[in-house]
Amino acid sequence: MGISEVREYDCWLQGRGQNQFSDALKNCLSRIVVKEDCLVVKQAALELQRGLKRMFGVDAAITDTIQKPCTVVGTATAVSELTGKTVSCDRAEGFCIEIGDELSVVAGADCNGTLYGAFRLLMELAKGAGTGFSLEDAPRSGIRMINHWDNLDGTIERGYAGPSLFYKDDKIDYDPQRIEDYARLLASIGINCLSINNVNVRKTAKLLITEQFLPDVAKLADIFRPFGIRLMLSINFGAPYSFGDLDTADPLDPRVGEWWAKRADLVYKYIPDLAGFLVKADSEGEAGPFQYGRDHADGANMLAKALKPHNGTVIWRCFVYNCTQDWRDQTQDRACAAYDHFMPLDGRFDDNVILQIKHGPYDFQVREPVTPLFGALKKTRHLIEFQITQEYTGHQIDVCFLPYMWQDVYHFDTKHGENSTIGGMMGNRISGAVAVGSVGRDENWTGNTLSQANWFGFGRLAWNPDLTAEEIADEWVKLTFGLDPEVDAAVNKILMMSYPTYENYNAPFGVCFMVTRSLHYGPDIEGYEYSRWGTYHRANWEAVGVDRTPSGTNYTGQYAPENAAMFADLATCPENLMLFFHRVPYSYVMKNGKNLLQNIYDTHFKGVEQVEEIIRTWEGIQDKIGSAVYASVRERMGRQLTNAIEWRDVVNTYFHRHTGIPDEQGRKIYD
Amino acid sequence: MGISEVREYDCWLQGRGQNQFSDALKNCLSRIVVKEDCLVVKQAALELQRGLKRMFGVDAAITDTIQKPCTVVGTATAVSELTGKTVSCDRAEGFCIEIGDELSVVAGADCNGTLYGAFRLLMELAKGAGTGFSLEDAPRSGIRMINHWDNLDGTIERGYAGPSLFYKDDKIDYDPQRIEDYARLLASIGINCLSINNVNVRKTAKLLITEQFLPDVAKLADIFRPFGIRLMLSINFGAPYSFGDLDTADPLDPRVGEWWAKRADLVYKYIPDLAGFLVKADSEGEAGPFQYGRDHADGANMLAKALKPHNGTVIWRCFVYNCTQDWRDQTQDRACAAYDHFMPLDGRFDDNVILQIKHGPYDFQVREPVTPLFGALKKTRHLIEFQITQEYTGHQIDVCFLPYMWQDVYHFDTKHGENSTIGGMMGNRISGAVAVGSVGRDENWTGNTLSQANWFGFGRLAWNPDLTAEEIADEWVKLTFGLDPEVDAAVNKILMMSYPTYENYNAPFGVCFMVTRSLHYGPDIEGYEYSRWGTYHRANWEAVGVDRTPSGTNYTGQYAPENAAMFADLATCPENLMLFFHRVPYSYVMKNGKNLLQNIYDTHFKGVEQVEEIIRTWEGIQDKIGSAVYASVRERMGRQLTNAIEWRDVVNTYFHRHTGIPDEQGRKIYD
Repeated sequence: MGISEVREYDCWLQGRGQNQFSDALKNCLSRIVVKEDCLVVKQAALELQRGLKRMFGVDAAITDTIQKPCTVVGTATAVSELTGKTVSCDRAEGFCIEIGDELSVVAGADCNGTLYGAFRLLMELAKGAGTGFSLEDAPRSGIRMINHWDNLDGTIERGYAGPSLFYKDDKIDYDPQRIEDYARLLASIGINCLSINNVNVRKTAKLLITEQFLPDVAKLADIFRPFGIRLMLSINFGAPYSFGDLDTADPLDPRVGEWWAKRADLVYKYIPDLAGFLVKADSEGEAGPFQYGRDHADGANMLAKALKPHNGTVIWRCFVYNCTQDWRDQTQDRACAAYDHFMPLDGRFDDNVILQIKHGPYDFQVREPVTPLFGALKKTRHLIEFQITQEYTGHQIDVCFLPYMWQDVYHFDTKHGENSTIGGMMGNRISGAVAVGSVGRDENWTGNTLSQANWFGFGRLAWNPDLTAEEIADEWVKLTFGLDPEVDAAVNKILMMSYPTYENYNAPFGVCFMVTRSLHYGPDIEGYEYSRWGTYHRANWEAVGVDRTPSGTNYTGQYAPENAAMFADLATCPENLMLFFHRVPYSYVMKNGKNLLQNIYDTHFKGVEQVEEIIRTWEGIQDKIGSAVYASVRERMGRQLTNAIEWRDVVNTYFHRHTGIPDEQGRKIYD
Repeated sequence: MGISEVREYDCWLQGRGQNQFSDALKNCLSRIVVKEDCLVVKQAALELQRGLKRMFGVDAAITDTIQKPCTVVGTATAVSELTGKTVSCDRAEGFCIEIGDELSVVAGADCNGTLYGAFRLLMELAKGAGTGFSLEDAPRSGIRMINHWDNLDGTIERGYAGPSLFYKDDKIDYDPQRIEDYARLLASIGINCLSINNVNVRKTAKLLITEQFLPDVAKLADIFRPFGIRLMLSINFGAPYSFGDLDTADPLDPRVGEWWAKRADLVYKYIPDLAGFLVKADSEGEAGPFQYGRDHADGANMLAKALKPHNGTVIWRCFVYNCTQDWRDQTQDRACAAYDHFMPLDGRFDDNVILQIKHGPYDFQVREPVTPLFGALKKTRHLIEFQITQEYTGHQIDVCFLPYMWQDVYHFDTKHGENSTIGGMMGNRISGAVAVGSVGRDENWTGNTLSQANWFGFGRLAWNPDLTAEEIADEWVKLTFGLDPEVDAAVNKILMMSYPTYENYNAPFGVCFMVTRSLHYGPDIEGYEYSRWGTYHRANWEAVGVDRTPSGTNYTGQYAPENAAMFADLATCPENLMLFFHRVPYSYVMKNGKNLLQNIYDTHFKGVEQVEEIIRTWEGIQDKIGSAVYASVRERMGRQLTNAIEWRDVVNTYFHRHTGIPDEQGRKIYD
């Protein structure tokens, strides 16, 4: 293959000239047979047709009559009828694929499954699959969702890739073709639900559930529907009050329930298949049931009853903590908040309420333990929440391949009963995965082209939590950059080393929050030490970290006993979370025989060296990558190096100023 | 006197029922004789008439014929002619006052002097003067100016008293009566020049020098003119370029000079007595001659030539420093910047250029040394700049009587030649004083009523730098609160203790910049330690402060030798500036026998106790102060206490975490 430009816009659905089909296979693929009424199944055939053209230059026709060689697309029942051959796949949203020269088959367990099968066929072909290839697959869990933090003024909270796809100047305002292209990319990785406005529902955004905006929301839903994607709206819990209709938003006031029921009737009149409402309540200044002396079950159930007649769901965020703490009060521990608030409510929630729980107890820090609610909750539906947008992980300036850390989350064993890893609980105890999205109007969707891998990886892991970061990286690289072994090796190397690199030059050993406040990029070591946000490392002349063992805040006690004991013992606590769970003297000797202080110095010097290696690796394949993508990623890598150097020097200086102890290798630390 | 409400709006020009005139004196004052064409002299008579009514309830008539008993108002020549009695006062803008039962006289050396005499008569009467009182006075220097940092959108940069008096929604938009009342207050304390827009001239503000705004600026000038106040406009040095007229703003390009000359012609067509242009160039992102490889003399002189035909002046700010420093580079010292930039240009500036130099080398920190340019500049006209608005001194929430610190500036002896204190150089080597204003649309002008004292005090000190803070406080208290001895004592006590109190709970011993970035209120000890703004205390486990002696950055070398030696020696350096000039170990024993660390603890505990005492003192006179003023000041004092406690705890914790050494009195320091 040559050095054709990587088409950033098409992401992992571009052809890189990988598959040179045999004439026989080409003939088979060129006739697509579909004979079903389902909108999504029809879209599957269309996407197959378009994908074959876009990715491989193959012209295919769509017909409803079978005539071999051909490729039949449809639900398993329909395909069996058409082909006379029994095709079985019965796991929800699953599919099976068979590639043959005479007959290829894409059969879904249902409509969505068929669409996912069509996309998977395209991607497998791009990775080199041919005649004889077959695959059966299904998503582990039923909810695979993206949260948009888009504001109606067109800004995106924590967005690093241009303005909102959906809004501009307080209106719903979009390029319909781009929205369809977005839906395509989402469906290709199995996303089936999308909340389209920021969970902080302020100003005009409150009015999305009124007739001022609903017609436009409905049009947007029309675009996503053929792709098997249902929309959700973030609502403001205080709306009955802030709209001026009632003097309260108290969830136990019957008038409030009635208000929401009527509101739901109106909303569903416009979007009958709306997935429901997403709610951030009593959090960081948002309205909520606490204002009325009610609890979160009261609040969520009230909304659930309003949505119930429409088969709607309330997704209720567990990101509830005291953000007006006094830094002097060390008995308060924000890490405990989600469990403290929601564990006592287990069993109190209606069946169309789903809690949304961040994977870690804080807020998407570089390294956090898994939130102890997972595994502990027994009688409450819930989702695990990730963040694709790189709020604390480099703003899509720094390369940071998140599946590397997400796999650790999925592999974490909660030790609650059988099959108790997060991955193992997906689809049974955990209803699905949701992530804050990362896209905007930038041509390449994600600002940094390499950040597309995080978006892709979230979808792939939500589908199959057993995938490793290596597998995901490799798949993404092949789909995006093609099969050239040198490019393949280089980009895989960059992705796989990026997370540990970022972790090295960032806050050390799970201590969290040494980042600039508000901006959340670059170091501000004491930025949160005296703040109301309540997270501290409390570094002094001899030690750093927070004691969360029974001798401290006893956050460890929220875990199953085996994990509680493991975290509470400095000897068994994973070192990458050491400062999260323990207050550790700088002189503490770590597993590598060096003390904590020296390890802080070492990791920070190493992080910068690793960024330099990432840059060299990227520069090594310059000739094999289109110039635009090469240059835009390279420019970001320059900024990443500056950032890494700043982190290194500020962290090292900070600890050197506290201890007076120099680096044992005599490397430069600024006084 | 009773407990009538203090009329905050009238400030120091309200009557508090102090003067119960004898009938004879009342008769004499009731007939005001004025016979002159000068607008300002006529205003003097008017102000006397209005003031007698407003302040003392005395009805007076204005006439042009002398008939005793009467009070004659006018320039000395005119008064001598009218009364047949030789009145001599010949110092510019000076006056003499004589109070008699038959004939009182207010005679000015010139028009402005007459107006100042009229106001002084009113104030002296309010303080208790009567028949037989006489006074001759004149301002020490000719320029007594206020800078408004008002933006055209109505905001005020560093404003803490409501929106701009002048602007709203990108228009000149004001209450003419309020502007006249403002002019009155300014004239009463001798202010004769006013720049009306922010020195950061951005967006619409650039257009003030165009016909879009000039007619409205002219109307504003009309209001100030009878009060002897000339306006000035802040301009953007890059205007020829940013207006799109030229491809450069290079001061040595003849087209640029021509552009400004034409621009000046236009501006002066509308406001023939405009004082000139105020310029912030090459500072904090503003355009300037450095962009074109020119120096500040090139830039200022080019503008000066444009203004020369109109008798206009360029006031050129010396607040030029590198605000993109690297914190690692300890050879850079922002304190050196003004001297480094401007001392080499001494003698290069045209005679209608005046440099405006902040009193300290940084930026209005709580305690700074006097800028070494003063006394050193020999051949360049210059002003000293203060800040009335309490940017770093409590945001007009905290009581902080600034003349307490300003007197230290005026008393500082530069040791350059004869009569070398700042005060001594006023009116000869230093052309005048300028301050950033503090007023907005709040009813009481300054947010905190007690902050009126700073405004008043700036004017009084600009007039007479020999005044002490005690004298100013006492005068202001009597004029504002009346002559009740208990109120008098209490408010004087509050004012006089407020500055050392604020200094106690703020950054210790002249170390500066431990304040929150951007906001500049409340502590953020390391907020600037790793920033591009270039100011550091570099606290570590053993020491704090910056070595600016010859062994360090040698900033001390910018002072006259005697001062250089004094500052460079820790033993002779004033302790309130110790950490500005020296890096000092915590164990260093100070004059009181305690070490630095313990002194940091002590001052911070004391600062909070002093705020509590201020509150008790204010509460003690509640019954004697109108309820509105009492309550609004008391509410602010509550916030001040919270602020002081935060400063105390954060500063003490910070140093305790670095040293591990507890307070010797065992008081609470949070870990």
